[in-house]
Amino acid sequence: MTQPPITDIPAYMADLGRRARTAARALARAATLDKDAALIAIAQHIERERAVIATANRADLDAGAAKGLDAAMLDRLELTPGRIDAMLEGLRQIAALPDPIGAITDLNYRPSGIQVGRMRVPLGVVGIIYESRPNVTADAAGLCLKSGNATVLRGGSESLASNQAIAACIRAGLTQAGLPADGVQVVATTDRAAVGSMIAMPEFIDVIIPRGGKGLIERISRDARVPVIKHLDGICHVYLDAAADPDQALRIVMNAKTQRYGTCNTLETLLVDAPVAATLLPPIAAALAAQGVELRGCPRTLDLVPYALPATDEDWDTEYLAPILSIRILDGLDAAMDHIARHGSAHTDAIVTQDYGRARRFLREVDSSSVMVNASTRFADGFEYGLGAEIGISTDKFHARGPVGLEGLTSLKFVVLGDGQVRA
Amino acid sequence: MTQPPITDIPAYMADLGRRARTAARALARAATLDKDAALIAIAQHIERERAVIATANRADLDAGAAKGLDAAMLDRLELTPGRIDAMLEGLRQIAALPDPIGAITDLNYRPSGIQVGRMRVPLGVVGIIYESRPNVTADAAGLCLKSGNATVLRGGSESLASNQAIAACIRAGLTQAGLPADGVQVVATTDRAAVGSMIAMPEFIDVIIPRGGKGLIERISRDARVPVIKHLDGICHVYLDAAADPDQALRIVMNAKTQRYGTCNTLETLLVDAPVAATLLPPIAAALAAQGVELRGCPRTLDLVPYALPATDEDWDTEYLAPILSIRILDGLDAAMDHIARHGSAHTDAIVTQDYGRARRFLREVDSSSVMVNASTRFADGFEYGLGAEIGISTDKFHARGPVGLEGLTSLKFVVLGDGQVRA
Repeated sequence: MTQPPITDIPAYMADLGRRARTAARALARAATLDKDAALIAIAQHIERERAVIATANRADLDAGAAKGLDAAMLDRLELTPGRIDAMLEGLRQIAALPDPIGAITDLNYRPSGIQVGRMRVPLGVVGIIYESRPNVTADAAGLCLKSGNATVLRGGSESLASNQAIAACIRAGLTQAGLPADGVQVVATTDRAAVGSMIAMPEFIDVIIPRGGKGLIERISRDARVPVIKHLDGICHVYLDAAADPDQALRIVMNAKTQRYGTCNTLETLLVDAPVAATLLPPIAAALAAQGVELRGCPRTLDLVPYALPATDEDWDTEYLAPILSIRILDGLDAAMDHIARHGSAHTDAIVTQDYGRARRFLREVDSSSVMVNASTRFADGFEYGLGAEIGISTDKFHARGPVGLEGLTSLKFVVLGDGQVRA
Repeated sequence: MTQPPITDIPAYMADLGRRARTAARALARAATLDKDAALIAIAQHIERERAVIATANRADLDAGAAKGLDAAMLDRLELTPGRIDAMLEGLRQIAALPDPIGAITDLNYRPSGIQVGRMRVPLGVVGIIYESRPNVTADAAGLCLKSGNATVLRGGSESLASNQAIAACIRAGLTQAGLPADGVQVVATTDRAAVGSMIAMPEFIDVIIPRGGKGLIERISRDARVPVIKHLDGICHVYLDAAADPDQALRIVMNAKTQRYGTCNTLETLLVDAPVAATLLPPIAAALAAQGVELRGCPRTLDLVPYALPATDEDWDTEYLAPILSIRILDGLDAAMDHIARHGSAHTDAIVTQDYGRARRFLREVDSSSVMVNASTRFADGFEYGLGAEIGISTDKFHARGPVGLEGLTSLKFVVLGDGQVRA
């Protein structure tokens, strides 16, 4: 896997971008059968090269350990046999998804006699910047390929050898299916200047999807010269309405908070309507405490749950990603929606209620990428929503919102069919 | 209309933005009936205040003339009675359009038992930067209001008094309908720093739509800290395929080039397949020349149309917006699509053909916001497409492509309905 050092980063990245841009035209018009054949062929090459990939990954892990990476980082970096299986399964699942490209919708006759419709088309070249998680390389390449986009992938520097080993399989699979190997570019330098180049090449890259820590994403969003599909905070709320079913309330809060602590769709702040707080909250708090969740409450919460800690103003604006939950008792739906508007991150928020009118208002008025009635916030996920897979979750409103699957990697162009019509 | 001078521009713009952001929540949940009532009331106030608006416009025109504005600029600045009628008609038409907000699509049951769908929602606060064309003030406010968005409008400095007179009618109409007057903010300073502030307030403005010259739009796109829906060049092509119907070819080229010279969907480069050039091109060239269109041709064109001027390389990349047409004879569909990919601006491109297979390929493979078969490029327009009205035309692929109507001012959020489901 040794390569000559890359010294002129801007020139190197421009070359990568130019190759991707050229390949994008071929991928945009590629037949579904060929794209699916490439996905299967990539999986076969990865399967065949397991030993090579494992050796490269071993080198990355050894270098990472020598560099003093912590256990969590080393864990994410490792390509266990199970993770390689998951990559293969992911590629095969993407091959089985319907092809979104070329689909024409709303093709209608206009008074002038022309037919006007919209055709789904790729975005072009998608740039993805991610942490040292080499399995993302195959997932991201697969989703972009199926949606007819070329890709420039820049993984964390600690995963360079692993990514290059996977990249070789991707190129081989594309070539085998008769598609341009340049359609997936995996950046082969750890120089951080590569990221700076990537986000400032609108002539070669149409959109950037950063995955990773909030600091990285904020920095990229600030400096990018192209659109960014980004995911920032996930400060998710569950609001227990006066008409909440108590069993549902308990089940949903427990699942939303404790099923996994570190995910963006995990519950961080529980809101409770005052009239039902005395009956609903103590058993839920006890169940959470029994699971080791630290509770931080408003003054009214502390009256009902004396073992909770006092919440500070900062708690309402915090994504814990940890076994900690803030709890606030307030007066009615409007107060709850005000709290969510002020402190939420527009990610995922749920109401638990049997009241039809308040459910309807919550659905319409809460401005988050996922709004739920009587369901766990943990459902906010591309697989659970039936998107097949997701390249990320967008907390923006522009272009794509919420889990981003194949469709988020596409756009719509207008198509017009006539038989000689001209404008009057 | 005299107002105290505004000295602290950033503070002034932040105040405007904050008011718009607050009003946006009320507009997002506003009932269709109330939004429509506001649109009608705004039209009534403009009708009633015709004299006041005319006086303000007269002041703008006098100041503009004293400043030495050219005739075209003064023409755009003028609010003739006919233009005021058109504003009123536009507002009433927008009121009559279906309300896109709140519509839920694709609500399907998932294996987990939850129902997942997508609800159309406003973008939030839309900032619009435009030239000294005061009629745009009412049009833009109307489209944003109907789509549930708050708006910050910044028109050209020469139209300040006219815009403020219209702004007073907008505020009165909103108030009359029980909607927040702060939902439409019309910037009341001519200081150019206001634009700089507007494009760098992601906390208050969600998207910027610049309208005007290419230089302005490029500058805004480069410096903006929020997404921009932008329209750059319109270098539109018509390709006369070997199987083109000669009558359709003549009719479409004449309409696409000569119906209006200054619009973005006007034909700028005619491409002709070599085998039919000798029969198709001379009569079309003669008809164009008879209308006073200057022809600039490739060498093969000059053989057939001796009175054409030689085209330079620059011609293929030029949006004339004038009675000038470049003509190139080439060999077959792939050469035509290569030319369009290299020299086009991804705006609107058409093929004239009776060949099924080549029509199908052109539709799929040409990467432009509008792709047409046997129709004039002049149809690329919100009204002609049935969008009802357009706030602009996007030459981007991200978010919205082509004519942007109400839907382009919206996003989709996920809605989830359950009865206590939790994630396994």
